[in-house]
Amino acid sequence: MARSIDLAVIPGDGIGPEVVAEGLKVLSAVLPSDVKLATTEYDLGARRWHATGETLPDAELEQLRGHDAILLGAVGDPGVPSGVLERGLLLKLRFAFDHYVNLRPSRLFPNTATPLAGRPDIDFVVVREGTEGPYVGNGGSMRTGTPAEVATEVSLNTAYGVERVVRDAFERAAARPAKKLTLVHKNNVLVHAGHLWSRTVERVGAEYPGVATDYLHVDAATIFLVTQPERFDVIVTDNLFGDILTDLAAAVTGGIGLAASGNINPTGAFPSMFEPVHGSAPDIAGTGKADPTATVLSAALLLRHLGHEAAAEKIEDAVTADLASRDGAPRTTSAIGDALAS
Amino acid sequence: MARSIDLAVIPGDGIGPEVVAEGLKVLSAVLPSDVKLATTEYDLGARRWHATGETLPDAELEQLRGHDAILLGAVGDPGVPSGVLERGLLLKLRFAFDHYVNLRPSRLFPNTATPLAGRPDIDFVVVREGTEGPYVGNGGSMRTGTPAEVATEVSLNTAYGVERVVRDAFERAAARPAKKLTLVHKNNVLVHAGHLWSRTVERVGAEYPGVATDYLHVDAATIFLVTQPERFDVIVTDNLFGDILTDLAAAVTGGIGLAASGNINPTGAFPSMFEPVHGSAPDIAGTGKADPTATVLSAALLLRHLGHEAAAEKIEDAVTADLASRDGAPRTTSAIGDALAS
Ligand SMILES: CC(C)[C@H](C(=O)O)[C@@H](O)C(=O)O
Ligand SMILES: CC(C)[C@H](C(=O)O)[C@@H](O)C(=O)O
Repeated sequence: MARSIDLAVIPGDGIGPEVVAEGLKVLSAVLPSDVKLATTEYDLGARRWHATGETLPDAELEQLRGHDAILLGAVGDPGVPSGVLERGLLLKLRFAFDHYVNLRPSRLFPNTATPLAGRPDIDFVVVREGTEGPYVGNGGSMRTGTPAEVATEVSLNTAYGVERVVRDAFERAAARPAKKLTLVHKNNVLVHAGHLWSRTVERVGAEYPGVATDYLHVDAATIFLVTQPERFDVIVTDNLFGDILTDLAAAVTGGIGLAASGNINPTGAFPSMFEPVHGSAPDIAGTGKADPTATVLSAALLLRHLGHEAAAEKIEDAVTADLASRDGAPRTTSAIGDALAS
Repeated sequence: MARSIDLAVIPGDGIGPEVVAEGLKVLSAVLPSDVKLATTEYDLGARRWHATGETLPDAELEQLRGHDAILLGAVGDPGVPSGVLERGLLLKLRFAFDHYVNLRPSRLFPNTATPLAGRPDIDFVVVREGTEGPYVGNGGSMRTGTPAEVATEVSLNTAYGVERVVRDAFERAAARPAKKLTLVHKNNVLVHAGHLWSRTVERVGAEYPGVATDYLHVDAATIFLVTQPERFDVIVTDNLFGDILTDLAAAVTGGIGLAASGNINPTGAFPSMFEPVHGSAPDIAGTGKADPTATVLSAALLLRHLGHEAAAEKIEDAVTADLASRDGAPRTTSAIGDALAS
């Protein structure tokens, strides 16, 4: 457990800077007094792209690499063409820093809204692969814009990449009370990638006899997420399926205003990055309506990753208490942050 | 409107034969008396594969091609390795008969259970592309089973294939009261395939000024399917995203026991195939617990496709009335079929 944290902060666009400010407020409040926190802001995102055309220059990637971790708010605005910041900044960071564990916990906190009748008991975590699959950017098109156009997207999957994230998921499952791991894929159609995943879970699972495993096709998994979400404990899945499942999981647990995520390199070779699942929500930027809770919970994941378990739990307890005390009266972004920090 | 229907029937495995029997019962009951129905059964599925190792021999594919349409129950059992019947039978039929419109209506009928609180008003149809995308079977693996394994899956997309399904979706949207088309893709990550889809919707949409269009990333679409499903009218999407969205859509509209689908070749060059979205459910086969409604509704889609609109509506009205009258008391598969037929 380090006695200092050298944090890179990418506030980003829209509500990004607002929620990051609260995240940092709460993070500072829970840190043991002898742990020094240093932060460096990076001006990256839509504003920067509009101004300079840059998404993530190599020099800044190099600087970011020197930090202990990265906290990101949200980037993007409607003026940036789809794909530019995703490929040029967000995914570039995930790939460059080998964030192979994209960690997304889902919990239905007491007193929070869910679209599901009967308020099921939801507490699972999705371990989404973060560096392979259909996200590798291996696609192209020819005769683009003509009636003869062909466009491809290649999903690349390796035993190396699948095994390391499956191991991480088994470790997490073994440490949880329910000790259950569900692999989600589509191995009846994407047979090559799917069978690599299935075989890997079977083989690695043999080393974890205490963890029960099962398998669901991604389409069936979406059904269970709304009809029986309490059946899930740890889900391990491919990059694209994980993207889809975690948004749905966020929706059934109170919305993406509460969903935290960590893009983690468990080896420590590169800094890990923590960010709320939500976007920059330009429509409510500056109104104080953004809920900073997802960013605050992401800060808890960050602290846990750096070994500050007690501080992480403090944040999670504060969030639970704060949500339980909400009476529906609107509070500003900073009021929520203040409440959590105190 | 043909005065005779030459139907191929693939009852399949598990509950397949049971639900198909009821589907045919209801279909015969609503057909005008001067329309002759001839059916030919094909023994395809898990039982056949266990017995002979065959999934769909060329000779039978050739015979199937001669029919006006195909009604399929469900195929598969736990003894068949994942992928064998999917690639060898179901997807083979979709690809061989160029079923480029995979049509899946979703409606929350009165008095049916939904996991969603507040019972939103749900009535939309998903037009899922059926012959391209990640379903083409263009993948492979090397060094299989070793730590150096690499597995790929290639999504193939063509202007030809995207345009024809997008046109079909616009036609359907133009014929509906709400006149709204939502494209679902992931064009910020799968930029090549995604932009082909986006450009096509924009271009074809210019010919349909009366239809409002919008776009959602697939992850966001799953959120809206549970928080605001009433916003959807017609969804057009890629093969894999359509697979995922329609299972989720089925879940929020009373479960896959009610979800119908058509694998349609709108040109009539090949027979179209109609099937419930659910599987063979071996656990309840033979118990009379299977709900044949999804198959009955698939038969309605079949009749509509063959020009028997009035008969199709009769079925849909009967289903609406039957669901409205259900009091939760269990009824057998054939009792439901009898009720619908009368
Ligand atoms: C913005 C986008 C590239 C990203 C993803 O698809 O991974 C987002 O949806 C997420 O889930 O973090
Ligand atoms: C069985 C499988 C090949 C199929 C699909 O993925 O299309 C099924 O899930 C469906 O939705 O019809």
